[in-house]
Formats: sequence, structure tokens, C-alpha cells
Amino acid sequence: MTRPVPEARDRYPHFLTITTRWMDNDVYSHVNNVVYYSWFDTAVNEYMLREGVLSMDQGPICLVVETGCQYFSAISFPDTVHCGLRVAHLGASSVRFEIGIFRNDEPAAAAQGHFVHVCCDRVTHRPIAMREDMRAALEKLRVMLVKPRDKLANPVKRPGVIVGDAGRVAQAKTFDEAKWRKKWPTRRKSR
Amino acid sequence: MTRPVPEARDRYPHFLTITTRWMDNDVYSHVNNVVYYSWFDTAVNEYMLREGVLSMDQGPICLVVETGCQYFSAISFPDTVHCGLRVAHLGASSVRFEIGIFRNDEPAAAAQGHFVHVCCDRVTHRPIAMREDMRAALEKLRVMLVKPRDKLANPVKRPGVIVGDAGRVAQAKTFDEAKWRKKWPTRRKSR
Amino acid sequence: MTRPVPEARDRYPHFLTITTRWMDNDVYSHVNNVVYYSWFDTAVNEYMLREGVLSMDQGPICLVVETGCQYFSAISFPDTVHCGLRVAHLGASSVRFEIGIFRNDEPAAAAQGHFVHVCCDRVTHRPIAMREDMRAALEKLRVMLVKPRDKLANPVKRPGVIVGDAGRVAQAKTFDEAKWRKKWPTRRKSR
Amino acid sequence: MTRPVPEARDRYPHFLTITTRWMDNDVYSHVNNVVYYSWFDTAVNEYMLREGVLSMDQGPICLVVETGCQYFSAISFPDTVHCGLRVAHLGASSVRFEIGIFRNDEPAAAAQGHFVHVCCDRVTHRPIAMREDMRAALEKLRVMLVKPRDKLANPVKRPGVIVGDAGRVAQAKTFDEAKWRKKWPTRRKSR
Repeated sequence: MTRPVPEARDRYPHFLTITTRWMDNDVYSHVNNVVYYSWFDTAVNEYMLREGVLSMDQGPICLVVETGCQYFSAISFPDTVHCGLRVAHLGASSVRFEIGIFRNDEPAAAAQGHFVHVCCDRVTHRPIAMREDMRAALEKLRVMLVKPRDKLANPVKRPGVIVGDAGRVAQAKTFDEAKWRKKWPTRRKSR
Repeated sequence: MTRPVPEARDRYPHFLTITTRWMDNDVYSHVNNVVYYSWFDTAVNEYMLREGVLSMDQGPICLVVETGCQYFSAISFPDTVHCGLRVAHLGASSVRFEIGIFRNDEPAAAAQGHFVHVCCDRVTHRPIAMREDMRAALEKLRVMLVKPRDKLANPVKRPGVIVGDAGRVAQAKTFDEAKWRKKWPTRRKSR
Repeated sequence: MTRPVPEARDRYPHFLTITTRWMDNDVYSHVNNVVYYSWFDTAVNEYMLREGVLSMDQGPICLVVETGCQYFSAISFPDTVHCGLRVAHLGASSVRFEIGIFRNDEPAAAAQGHFVHVCCDRVTHRPIAMREDMRAALEKLRVMLVKPRDKLANPVKRPGVIVGDAGRVAQAKTFDEAKWRKKWPTRRKSR
Repeated sequence: MTRPVPEARDRYPHFLTITTRWMDNDVYSHVNNVVYYSWFDTAVNEYMLREGVLSMDQGPICLVVETGCQYFSAISFPDTVHCGLRVAHLGASSVRFEIGIFRNDEPAAAAQGHFVHVCCDRVTHRPIAMREDMRAALEKLRVMLVKPRDKLANPVKRPGVIVGDAGRVAQAKTFDEAKWRKKWPTRRKSR
């Protein structure tokens, strides 16, 4: 495993600002590691509610199948955090989000994580094809990291392409939806 | 990425039982994905406090540098969860824990995760060598997964060796402490 | 206001055991004051689910209109808490629960609180008469504190009567449902 | 008990804006009742940190001895909340804060609560006299509600006096520090 380095804010096309809370701090006077995931969850769902492609009451639901986070430097209440959000992969029913957590006005991420959502039927909890409106909303956050030499060969500025040293940033270890769907029968709806 | 399959309880040498709470459930009436990490955090720290190798007031502290979770099936309040804990890697100052979350009396994990702790100086937050008492406590949870054919060749039952189809379980993608330490200067103590 | 004194366990007819979590502790290495309310919420709802009188998916819902807590002594992870639960008042649609929080095997409460639930229609969020099955379940937890002299005058042991120095314990400042219902029109369902 | 009516924003001299999180919502798609207390805790401590009269690492600590909340109308993620803060009583070592929770741009409080802090020695956890700098900071939030007829008799606008129908708002049931201190020996520092 290559240890990823903290990214800059320009790697993320969308941001949400979240305030910290006193109880986020644990005995070490830093925000507890668990709380970062509540920010990921919030950034992702706020985007989808804002875009009008997720309803809390009806339609498909999005179940989380995998999350992860790397922590670079501490955050403490009363810091404010800025959550950068991008889409690294869009499958038939799944999406891999990547999130950068930036503390106050610092340029480098304090933490980076990923969050894989699968669109499911609200009743059966079985994966279903992502609706077109959701896909369109997620495409707007899609980012493809390219290497600087690609920049030379292809100078056209395309939306969703961030030019940078792709070899040094956290690569999207793409969630393999095809393999994963074959295993789905082992997933049970508990109640 | 190979999608891991849910493991059985016998892959974990230590368990902690945790009760769920009403507010753990989110709008989908399932325990929210974030809450699982509070269980990881609890299982790891409870073990170290129980073994007397971690103090909340003095001595080294353990900072979290990486966590992750895969979710297989839902858990809902008022379920009880049983957290299986093992050590997959012990470095000079770091440890990779792996945790299996088992719902009520179900045999297969509802979720599996990992949690990488680094021993640090309480004041400077710089990595330091793990104390021997902590290492000894963690060695008791160390597990090496071997393949069934190894079982035939080496029928001696060794502590810390769990015989199974190692090819099918979640492999410890070993946290590379050496590479990671070189990057440490980029980690700042924020306050 | 008379400062209440910590009660003993025999003032509570029902108990639920809850495990603490590492992140419950705040910067003072004690369980944060907020977390106690999650225990109240859990003890109340667990009882109603256990009795089969509350469903997460259908039927009336119970909205919280008032809560409160007095803190006597600290609790810290990895303590276990035992939540004593009693019903101090049952109205046409409301119920006032009182909860005692006992740390590990300590005889006196570390904290005491109350929790007022109102039965409401799931869609309109308007108060409705409590169903008889819920009332019957709550009656089992109903406790009337009587003074020692009442004990002499009425030596018959009645269910739900706890004999004690009622003047010294936290009196149920009964939630006045009649007055409160007149104000209900000011309560809005936000979304 | 008179049921208090929701107050307006002008009853609070200080505000803090807090963002909601996806996991704040519970199974009823509303922010869970417990979460409101995390906002109280945050508004109080943020004010004291901002004023430079509380340190997470040294000096006196503030322990919570009593909290309470009345809920008028629902709040749901992704709402933003504005926490109004005032001081209703300042004793020798204690302070009673009152907090109004306002949803988005609504004029009337969605919830109102109180929060009693006692200044204590960081090591012994015994009450100590409040430092003058903390007292001065809290005096700035002190509010005395007066009746409209007092307004006529005393037209001078004094700082900290909010003119209104004091009979209709939640009166500060003043925390009786003198009585309470006599009971302090029953409070134990658990660990």
C-alpha cells in the first residue's frame, strides 16, 4: 500500500461546510475518528437531497456497502470543516464517492475517505439500476485524475478532469460492481 | 478488489458485546453506517484498558491513521452486537486490528472492518516505539490465516493460527509502516 | 427548587443494561452529558418494543415533548450503566417516564432524568388517545411514591407503590397534559 | 407546570449557527431528541472558548449538573439551526444558561432548554468560585425579562434587559446554588 498524501482543495468539485460540536472531541481533545464518517455521510446525502434525486420517504434508497478513511492531521472543536466531494466511479447501481476533509482554511486535507453507495429497492433492499436523474447529478461530481503528460497531449480543458500528478494521489481502487453483485445473495435483509 | 465474504466467529480470538441504542437507527430504521466505527473504537480501546496497557491520563496515546468497513447485512436497534477482534499486523509502533461485527447469535459477520493505531507521544504526537507490555497484549490477539493445505503439512495446532480458506477471506492488506513513517513530517499537530 | 438526592435502585421496577462506548467520553474523560439522554431514549423505546406496543414501521408514533436530567456523579467508559425505568404519570395521550442511571454495581443513582412522550398519529403528528395495549404496558411500570406514614395507615402491599421518604426524592412535577394540549396548535409539523 | 410558549429570537443576546448531520435524523426522519443537547453543549462551550475563559487543557473545568429541554416542533437534516444563548442566573460558582433552538429562518423557537454549569477544580472536581474573567464574559449574556408595564415606568434601555411579556415566557426556575452546595458531598468523583 502506498501511503497517500494529503490532497489540495482543487481536487474536489463540490464542498459542504460542517460545524464541529463539543462532544465530537474525545479524551485526547481531538475530534474522534468516528465522527469523520458522519461528515462523509452528511456531504453525500446533502448533495443528493439538494439535487432532488433522493427522498427520505419514497423511491429507491442508497445503502452503504463500504467506507474508509485515512487520517493525516487532527481537527478539534470548535474548528469548522469543509468537505470536498467527488465521484470516482459510477456503475450500473453503485457509486464511489471520495471525500476530502479540510480544516478551517488549511489548503491540504486533514483526512481523506471513500464511501460506496448502492441504489436499492426501498422494500426488498435488492440492488436496482440507478435512476437517470441520480446518475446525471452524480456525473456532475465525476472526476478523472490525469497525469501532467496527458495535459500536454490533450490541452482541451474538459469538465470533470483534474490535471495533476495522478501517480501521487490516492487512486480510486475502483469498487468492482460486477464481482460484488455476484455475492449479493449472501446479503440478507435482517428485518 | 475481491469482494470479501462474511467471516465466521472462529476467525476472532476475542469478543466484546455492545448494546445498540435507539438513536443508532437512522431514517431507514437500520443502524447508521457511522455507528459501526464507534464499535470498532470501543472494542479496541476496551481491550487495551482491560489489559492495562493504555491509560487515559498518562503515557503514550494511540492515534488512528486509517480505518475501513465493509457492510454485508443490516443491524437494527434493539439488536445486540458481538465484536470480534484480532491483530493482523504488528509493526514497530503500529498495529492493524481487524474487527468482525456479529448480530445477535448469527454465525456470519454483518460487517468487517480494520483499524490502524500508531503509538505516539502524548505531547508531541510523534510516533514512538510500542512499549513491550502493549506489544505482549496485542500478540495475544495476533492471528495468521493459513490455507487448508498448510493444515495437512503442519498439523500442530499453534496459538494464533486459524486454519481456513485464507484465499477467500479478507486479506490483511498490511499497513506499510516503513513507507508511512517517511511521510510523517506532513502530519501536523493542529493544536 | 429542592435539589433531589440520588435514589436507590429499588425505586425502579424495570432495568435495562447499556454498555458505554469509547467516544462517549469527552475531553474530561467522562461520559458527556448529552449521552445520558441517549440512554433514556433507549430504555424507554426498548421497553415499548419488548412489550410489542410500538412499531418502527406502522401505527402511532411517540414524540418527545420534554426531557431533563440531573447529574450527581461521573460515569466513564468502560463503565456499564443500568437504567432504571418507571412511569410517574399516565395521561390520555402522554406518559412521563423517570429514569435512574446506575453505574456498574453502585447502589445510588449517578443521574436521574425524565422523558415525556406523547402518542401521535404517524402522518399528521397530532396527539391521539393512547392505545389500550400501550397503556397496559406502561401501567406495569407505574410507581406512586408514598410517605412512610402512609405505610402505617395502609399496610397492604400494592403493586406499583414504593414506600419511601417521598418528601426527599425527586417529585414528579406532573406534566400537565390538559394545559399542554390547548397549546398544541402552536406545534407545527415541519416537514 | 405552565407549558411555555416558543420564544422569539430577540430574547437571546448571542447566537451560534450549527449544521445538522444525516445521522441526526432518527427513524421518524426528524432530528432525534438527544441531539438537541449536543447543540446546547456546543453553544455554551463555544462561547466560553471564544471569550478565552475556558481552556481544554488547564484551569478550572465546568461540570454539568442539570439540563432540560422542551420540544415544540420538529427539525430535520439538512436544516440549519441557530442557537440563541442567554444567562438567566449567575451564582458564586454556577451559571444557568438558557438556549433557544431556531430552525432555518423561522422566528419562533423549535425547542428551548437550560444548562447548568458549575466551575470545578480540574483535579478534585470540587466546586470553586468562578474566576472574574469568566464571570465578566457571562455577564454579557445575562438577561432579565421584564413585564411590559415595567417598560413604561422605566423607559431607559438597559443592557441585558429584554422587554416582553415575562409572564408568558419560560421563567428561569433559578438553580438554587446554596441548597445544592450543601449536597455536594454526595457527589463523588468516580475515577
